[in-house]
Amino acid sequence: MFSNALKNVKIIRPLVHNITNYVTVNDCANVLLSLGASPIMADDEQEVEEITSMSSALVINIGTLNSRTVQSMILAGKKANEMNIPVVLDPVGAGASRLRTETTFRLLKEIKFAAIRGNISEIKTVGNLSSTTRGVDAGNSDNITDETISDATEFAKKLSLVTGAVISITGAIDIVSDRKKSYIIKNGHPMMSKISGTGCMLSSITGAFAATGENILDSCAAAVCAMGICGEEAYEKVMKSCSGTSSFKMYLIDFMGIMDDNVLERRAKIEIR
Amino acid sequence: MFSNALKNVKIIRPLVHNITNYVTVNDCANVLLSLGASPIMADDEQEVEEITSMSSALVINIGTLNSRTVQSMILAGKKANEMNIPVVLDPVGAGASRLRTETTFRLLKEIKFAAIRGNISEIKTVGNLSSTTRGVDAGNSDNITDETISDATEFAKKLSLVTGAVISITGAIDIVSDRKKSYIIKNGHPMMSKISGTGCMLSSITGAFAATGENILDSCAAAVCAMGICGEEAYEKVMKSCSGTSSFKMYLIDFMGIMDDNVLERRAKIEIR
Amino acid sequence: MFSNALKNVKIIRPLVHNITNYVTVNDCANVLLSLGASPIMADDEQEVEEITSMSSALVINIGTLNSRTVQSMILAGKKANEMNIPVVLDPVGAGASRLRTETTFRLLKEIKFAAIRGNISEIKTVGNLSSTTRGVDAGNSDNITDETISDATEFAKKLSLVTGAVISITGAIDIVSDRKKSYIIKNGHPMMSKISGTGCMLSSITGAFAATGENILDSCAAAVCAMGICGEEAYEKVMKSCSGTSSFKMYLIDFMGIMDDNVLERRAKIEIR
Repeated sequence: MFSNALKNVKIIRPLVHNITNYVTVNDCANVLLSLGASPIMADDEQEVEEITSMSSALVINIGTLNSRTVQSMILAGKKANEMNIPVVLDPVGAGASRLRTETTFRLLKEIKFAAIRGNISEIKTVGNLSSTTRGVDAGNSDNITDETISDATEFAKKLSLVTGAVISITGAIDIVSDRKKSYIIKNGHPMMSKISGTGCMLSSITGAFAATGENILDSCAAAVCAMGICGEEAYEKVMKSCSGTSSFKMYLIDFMGIMDDNVLERRAKIEIR
Repeated sequence: MFSNALKNVKIIRPLVHNITNYVTVNDCANVLLSLGASPIMADDEQEVEEITSMSSALVINIGTLNSRTVQSMILAGKKANEMNIPVVLDPVGAGASRLRTETTFRLLKEIKFAAIRGNISEIKTVGNLSSTTRGVDAGNSDNITDETISDATEFAKKLSLVTGAVISITGAIDIVSDRKKSYIIKNGHPMMSKISGTGCMLSSITGAFAATGENILDSCAAAVCAMGICGEEAYEKVMKSCSGTSSFKMYLIDFMGIMDDNVLERRAKIEIR
Repeated sequence: MFSNALKNVKIIRPLVHNITNYVTVNDCANVLLSLGASPIMADDEQEVEEITSMSSALVINIGTLNSRTVQSMILAGKKANEMNIPVVLDPVGAGASRLRTETTFRLLKEIKFAAIRGNISEIKTVGNLSSTTRGVDAGNSDNITDETISDATEFAKKLSLVTGAVISITGAIDIVSDRKKSYIIKNGHPMMSKISGTGCMLSSITGAFAATGENILDSCAAAVCAMGICGEEAYEKVMKSCSGTSSFKMYLIDFMGIMDDNVLERRAKIEIR
């Protein structure tokens, strides 16, 4: 269903502007390169608009945010909207501090996002921004299970309606949804939660897939499947080599460059609701 | 002697708040995850207190510090003291610049640390804060040797008395000491000095061990032994695979997740003084 | 021709002060350690002069620069000039934003650089600072080819005359030039462009080679050849192990520590013009 998603990234080599945290920034740069895209990182308010102007997508990740970078995020986001290039939001830690929650709300107010990607807890926080979604039952647990998936999918659809963005909720089971259609994705491996940066990397490659001009819902789903399959492959290599989590991270980034569209198509565990 | 130190970390999965430098921050996050703990990085003064409030330990590392983050360190440290969770100080580069030395002194004045971990030169700088420890002969060399170890141990005991913190001095030989009891630890491998971040990672996992509620002295010693054993294991893998320092770093983080309490117990080279 | 370049770094173990971006800073630290040098990262204006004072070289890299760090770069650069230690400039992204271009010009005005290393596009931007080099035809493409190499070499010589710095232009073919002599270097592998940080790492090790007191032109060339050979070796390992770009980065840093002067001498593909 993703036809030439990976091939298109490699042909177009989209430049993806990332305003992101200093914890996983190197992994984001390298996974974009491995995928075939081009990363650029810049967060000073004096230059972000120019950098966004030359880019094909913008990814805003609020991990380790500070007052200086929040302003840059808004400037870059407005410029991206003006240019009509996709903007991805990764609300890392939304709900964990007032600063992160308020910044998330402010970004949602000032910028039109093509996609919002987070774990269920972060996306629930995003949901609190509107009375339409506040209190919508997205399941009480911090993980989406087969029991809570119907509620969570309904929630994702409503949130997509309110925000205008495709919603990617990732965890053991992933949901990618616009207002009408949802994909339930079951790729991935639990070891992905034992390394830092899988979420951040996923947001960055979501930007790359979206930058190819493919529709946003399918771009988000392609990114989620691709990351999950890389996790599965990396786990197999870890098992074979009796290695650990740091090797796992390396293999995962490796595989992002090795995978082709046939593998993506064949291994995607995806269901439409 | 460490009974279930590793197992306890994996059961409790303590959230460890790190305010740390941007050089080795990714390694700190990944070694905590590999160990079985949860890392959170946040350094903006608007949010550090909230982040500390939800954490089980705080690690303050002054590498690449700046005026913005110093204030955050103090706010987070005070909050951690108020909540009675352990705070670990890594005075990276104390003595190398006035800013780092003065920041170290300021942090020691405003925050009660459970543990202070550094190399001999950094810990000597910490020792200069008080007339009781100033000029105490911690040996003149920048490495602890069998000749200087008695003096260094005495120094560590006195410094622990003055600061109220367990003192971890790491190098070829490590000393972990409170006011009464010292552990001399001889785990590790010289290749650990050929990668960036072993000290920072050790400080972060010290926070994780301390967060389990085990006594601080034993927590610090468990962390030092664990890191040293990972270095030994990583070196063996480097020898087998004819690889180099970057592989070494990966294997070291890998092994932090593979090691169990039996290995820790059996391989710990520890002597009580 | 490089006689004991690598050996000398390992004997002297120069301390290299890096003011650099948060994307690749960890790789810069680790490649310096792998090579046998000592990295120190510090960017606060309150301490950079002291840190530079104890160092043997300073590397200024403007990736992810911001107003706070620009001031630190100038303070550190002036101190390095005062102490007569080599300063290397990596004008990452010069030409991509006004901030980066203007910062590059400001740094060139206030600091005397021993070497400037960038890709052809960045170095062309540097060339625009003077009417002597502005408009000099460095070739129109963004890559140096056998067709454009003569023009590019002439441009590099003129730019070296104007700036007083050795010019390192790196890409598929590399040019290292002072006002009189140019080296054309053909080491390296295309996979180097699939990872983040090869340019930044090269600038950092250029600082280390220059810190040994060897003449700057040869130091720059040794660094370029060393990095290129590491890329070639890493590629061979990737082929053997069927791995990808992230493994490639690890092998590259590994090999920087494994290589000796014989290998450097034997594998250097260098031509004098």
